[in-house]
Amino acid sequence: MWFTSDNAAPAHPSVLEALAAANVGYCGSYGSDPITEAVTARIRDVFEAPDAAVHLVATGTTANALALACLCPPWATIYAHRNSHVEEDECGAPEFYTGGSKLTLIEGPDAKLAPTALSRALATAAHAGVHNVQRGAVTLTNTTEAGALYTVEEIREIAEIAHSYKCPVHLDGARFANALVALGCSAADMTWRAGVDAVSFGGTKNGLMGVEAIILFDPAKSWELELRRKRAGHLFSKHRYLAAQMQAYLADDLWLDLARHANAMATRLSNGLATIPGTSLMHPTEGNGVFARLPRKAHRSAMDAGAQYYLWPGDQTLDGPDDDAVGARLMCSWSTTEAEVDALLAVVRSAVQPTLARSG
Amino acid sequence: MWFTSDNAAPAHPSVLEALAAANVGYCGSYGSDPITEAVTARIRDVFEAPDAAVHLVATGTTANALALACLCPPWATIYAHRNSHVEEDECGAPEFYTGGSKLTLIEGPDAKLAPTALSRALATAAHAGVHNVQRGAVTLTNTTEAGALYTVEEIREIAEIAHSYKCPVHLDGARFANALVALGCSAADMTWRAGVDAVSFGGTKNGLMGVEAIILFDPAKSWELELRRKRAGHLFSKHRYLAAQMQAYLADDLWLDLARHANAMATRLSNGLATIPGTSLMHPTEGNGVFARLPRKAHRSAMDAGAQYYLWPGDQTLDGPDDDAVGARLMCSWSTTEAEVDALLAVVRSAVQPTLARSG
Amino acid sequence: MWFTSDNAAPAHPSVLEALAAANVGYCGSYGSDPITEAVTARIRDVFEAPDAAVHLVATGTTANALALACLCPPWATIYAHRNSHVEEDECGAPEFYTGGSKLTLIEGPDAKLAPTALSRALATAAHAGVHNVQRGAVTLTNTTEAGALYTVEEIREIAEIAHSYKCPVHLDGARFANALVALGCSAADMTWRAGVDAVSFGGTKNGLMGVEAIILFDPAKSWELELRRKRAGHLFSKHRYLAAQMQAYLADDLWLDLARHANAMATRLSNGLATIPGTSLMHPTEGNGVFARLPRKAHRSAMDAGAQYYLWPGDQTLDGPDDDAVGARLMCSWSTTEAEVDALLAVVRSAVQPTLARSG
Amino acid sequence: MWFTSDNAAPAHPSVLEALAAANVGYCGSYGSDPITEAVTARIRDVFEAPDAAVHLVATGTTANALALACLCPPWATIYAHRNSHVEEDECGAPEFYTGGSKLTLIEGPDAKLAPTALSRALATAAHAGVHNVQRGAVTLTNTTEAGALYTVEEIREIAEIAHSYKCPVHLDGARFANALVALGCSAADMTWRAGVDAVSFGGTKNGLMGVEAIILFDPAKSWELELRRKRAGHLFSKHRYLAAQMQAYLADDLWLDLARHANAMATRLSNGLATIPGTSLMHPTEGNGVFARLPRKAHRSAMDAGAQYYLWPGDQTLDGPDDDAVGARLMCSWSTTEAEVDALLAVVRSAVQPTLARSG
Repeated sequence: MWFTSDNAAPAHPSVLEALAAANVGYCGSYGSDPITEAVTARIRDVFEAPDAAVHLVATGTTANALALACLCPPWATIYAHRNSHVEEDECGAPEFYTGGSKLTLIEGPDAKLAPTALSRALATAAHAGVHNVQRGAVTLTNTTEAGALYTVEEIREIAEIAHSYKCPVHLDGARFANALVALGCSAADMTWRAGVDAVSFGGTKNGLMGVEAIILFDPAKSWELELRRKRAGHLFSKHRYLAAQMQAYLADDLWLDLARHANAMATRLSNGLATIPGTSLMHPTEGNGVFARLPRKAHRSAMDAGAQYYLWPGDQTLDGPDDDAVGARLMCSWSTTEAEVDALLAVVRSAVQPTLARSG
Repeated sequence: MWFTSDNAAPAHPSVLEALAAANVGYCGSYGSDPITEAVTARIRDVFEAPDAAVHLVATGTTANALALACLCPPWATIYAHRNSHVEEDECGAPEFYTGGSKLTLIEGPDAKLAPTALSRALATAAHAGVHNVQRGAVTLTNTTEAGALYTVEEIREIAEIAHSYKCPVHLDGARFANALVALGCSAADMTWRAGVDAVSFGGTKNGLMGVEAIILFDPAKSWELELRRKRAGHLFSKHRYLAAQMQAYLADDLWLDLARHANAMATRLSNGLATIPGTSLMHPTEGNGVFARLPRKAHRSAMDAGAQYYLWPGDQTLDGPDDDAVGARLMCSWSTTEAEVDALLAVVRSAVQPTLARSG
Repeated sequence: MWFTSDNAAPAHPSVLEALAAANVGYCGSYGSDPITEAVTARIRDVFEAPDAAVHLVATGTTANALALACLCPPWATIYAHRNSHVEEDECGAPEFYTGGSKLTLIEGPDAKLAPTALSRALATAAHAGVHNVQRGAVTLTNTTEAGALYTVEEIREIAEIAHSYKCPVHLDGARFANALVALGCSAADMTWRAGVDAVSFGGTKNGLMGVEAIILFDPAKSWELELRRKRAGHLFSKHRYLAAQMQAYLADDLWLDLARHANAMATRLSNGLATIPGTSLMHPTEGNGVFARLPRKAHRSAMDAGAQYYLWPGDQTLDGPDDDAVGARLMCSWSTTEAEVDALLAVVRSAVQPTLARSG
Repeated sequence: MWFTSDNAAPAHPSVLEALAAANVGYCGSYGSDPITEAVTARIRDVFEAPDAAVHLVATGTTANALALACLCPPWATIYAHRNSHVEEDECGAPEFYTGGSKLTLIEGPDAKLAPTALSRALATAAHAGVHNVQRGAVTLTNTTEAGALYTVEEIREIAEIAHSYKCPVHLDGARFANALVALGCSAADMTWRAGVDAVSFGGTKNGLMGVEAIILFDPAKSWELELRRKRAGHLFSKHRYLAAQMQAYLADDLWLDLARHANAMATRLSNGLATIPGTSLMHPTEGNGVFARLPRKAHRSAMDAGAQYYLWPGDQTLDGPDDDAVGARLMCSWSTTEAEVDALLAVVRSAVQPTLARSG
């Protein structure tokens, strides 16, 4: 019953097999190997973007920070949701990589940028000329940090607002596949066709050991990105091992299957909780995360039973009245099983409805 | 016949086995897993440094840059060999991570810091008070970029000079194991007992997919280093896969065996070349690299036969008179075989002594 | 009728005299001159802080950014008011100087940090360990960007909250003298005795050509600050001309007299506006700035008559219904005259009460 | 007898007069004043560059660092003389402003870039692709830190080499006027007509209190430079006082007259020393600085008599045998008098030729 994060899960067995297959003989270093060449082509195919710049890194924070550094000069600001990963979980990586740009925090439900809030922030920005930081990039996350989904139309709306101020758009796709299968559209539809300029295309949270692709649909800054990546220590010498993971991920639509499974487990969990009195959703369950409020006693029982997850937001605690609703983040992954979901549901149900559960 | 770099070699099979063994079930992210705990303890044991701060990263450039950023403020300078990796091969990573410190280039044969040159540079530094960058850290590499070895005494001499100016000492150990087995001393002897304050303890070039440990013998800056690592995107969420590699590396002295083999292959190659007329060493063969001058025609034959390696320095070419001595860097690794070495030697010998070889 | 900013005013004649007096013969460069020595001692006297580090720079943005860079590491955040100068008017200078720290924006009326908002922000900060930026410095401005005043008690309250989280406190004193004469306390009372750790002690807005002093009450980081200043190009070679200005400023309490005059002019203007129907204050008039709403027709008349000031906030315009209340910022300075104030009042009154004014 | 530096001299009286004339009434801040407008036009006239971007700052270090930051990305290197101001006297300002670029040190006599050394450095740069820092800008200083002069032809040669590698050329003109009057050419001839892309046009060392102009002949980066200047705290609110100084400087060719005088004093001193046995020049006297070796006893006498100057290089001392030749840097300025020069010559002569001097 691990629901702490999709990154607590192991890698998919195919990834290990791909590493073993790649682990034969010598090959060129730093990306000059045939697997890297093949996987680059494959990503361009997946995104229907034959000219895109594609570069692999090992972590999502890096993908975000490097992409944003190519899109936003030091004297500008990045428009990001107040609860986005770039703001809350990267210890200032965007600031480090850009050389000190600011983050302007935008509100919106379910960790989605509210178009009106974004418009207002952009409209009032930079009114004081040289005294203000300038308008930089807009970044959004799909699925969001609150497990919610932008539709293609919603992405297009954000992108149009951004572009009307000449701001490029970055998509943090740490859970790109979870969003894509939920939308049922193509990778191109969810990105460049909707106005996205750069993507952090995540793999780690969906079954890889640690690989993300940075995709710049306009390749003009490809060389700059390569230099920034090297300078930051993120160009791997034995690059084949990044490439092989990503290759396995994209083969036979494994990535989509894994995301579909994770989403299905979240839906199962969410639906199950909906049948238990005293529980409620904090955000809609649209990807692989469930954000729900449960009576405190249910958390106590769950944790006693070995369930692993975070109370949410982080300042919630197990101390307090039994029946208070206390929030939780419950992340499912490719490796979450129906049995795990059902076991958690059973514990929660039992805590909330002891007689019923006993007699059930 | 791949001698381009030790990072063109695959990972040792034990590493794959360790990854597979680690790839079971859920565990804590970001280093809060039992393998990370075990490998941290193991590294402290290896270095006889129970209090040392130990942090894993995936590349050597990162290990160097993060360690140096903890040792050198932005307004100071790092004393490094003119041919060191930090100067020549990291696209300015130390400058990026430190926030703009300078590198003061020190001369010395075989890519080793000459003590007199270092002393002179330190003595004349910062004579103009606030107008000059201040004295920062001293960094040295063992084995060096030219395949040479510092003895423990030589390291101590460098460290004493550095410390007399209150400069901390960093050791770039991208080929730490190759140096250690050549010296036949302990890891503690080669580092903190000789005055080294921080180490980039490399694994990638000696059989891992991509793992290095940063070791700070004084743990006072451990938290700062963790924050810098996170902020730079180098804290892996699925950290167990870094830890498992390093664990396999240090188990049963695998790391030392692999380095001994690589060094032995270099010695075999070096000794073999010594018997061929017209060849000469550019640097002593003391680790796993051979730096030799061969007649240009020998290079042509070797490359025709499929040998892979770099002419050295990089401005050498195959164009020119047949008999000119042209430099080469020939790196051996844990996976280099006697057969590969002997095949290369045969091609070279044959090019230089066609009759002899034919009749031989 | 210039009320755009206190920095649109000329320098006080004493400043010119002091420059002329200093402009004799040779002297040491970069601060090694007798005037610098004297003025440093004088500032320490004024602040009753014999050990304080005191360093001069030419602009307020520099004073703020250098002080904050000494108080806040790159991976931390500065708690500042949403309408503070550091956030809104420095084009990211704190981010540049700190090496990429964040600014956490705090709400509060009249551009004053609300203690509860600050407490909440500090309490919830850094809950995620290495993933979050850390708590850095707290900065407040007296008088504020909205012309309001922190009492000594209010400063102490902010400082106590900050210190309870080990955050140092910086005071942006661009209008330090205006605050001091309004409070009627000593410079020590308003700063270190109330818990302030570092001050940007402004002179430019109160009659100098361009000089501010950075004061660190704990001198431990004095040398670091000197290096940062030099590295940023802010150490003047002909330093005597900064020092002479500040010396004139502090002689015979000129600085206090100038601030008293500026404040009195603002009070006169504020009181005058209070007697005109349709006008209202946006913020209390507690220093040398008046923030008032006037009927739009009054602005039109004033500007037609040559009055210079900014509509406030910056997105207000002269287009629209005549009688709408439109905000304005009206800054007084040492050189504002009663005649100027009265002339502006007359124009406004006349626009609002045409008959009365004509017959009056 | 002050010969420490041209920045130990006072400002020219015209500068004080200009400040007093500017110190009347209100005007726009941050450069939106008529004096700034006029002086910008005047500089464009002087340089015959009607489209050039022209921005004022207060120090030479700032001018250099801001200009270089516009010319060189963080992942590139600046080619500078080993004894240049940017390398030796700015505490890493170029590194700070560029965001961590490197300085590649070029040799050459008299602190002039040797074309062959520059060519070699550029030719061998960046041979390793992404692993190396890239080629950035080339910077040269006229007159140099050793008092020597580049001819227009020599500047053109450097610029052609730089441009052949697409590197822009920056001229550190801390002593621009001294070079210009020595060459007897126009400002355009010495700069853009010879291939210079950006200039730090110094005034401080030649009679101002503290003003330099940054000139970018291609104005494409003008706005970027303005943002960088603001962000660094170098945009003065009371900008008229920078502009007024520069206006006085350029009026009636004052700047050229002052430089001619300073150069003449250096020539007088240099010629005088040439007649004294045991003295010799370290560098040719081509601007306003004399670099000469004198017997140690002459230094002792001079300093006893109150002469102020630096031994050169900085590691020379007064301790040692009487007759050893010890280097000195003797800087003349607009305010140096013939009497001062002759007094110093008399002391030196007397120390070297006691009888002769006594009987003379």
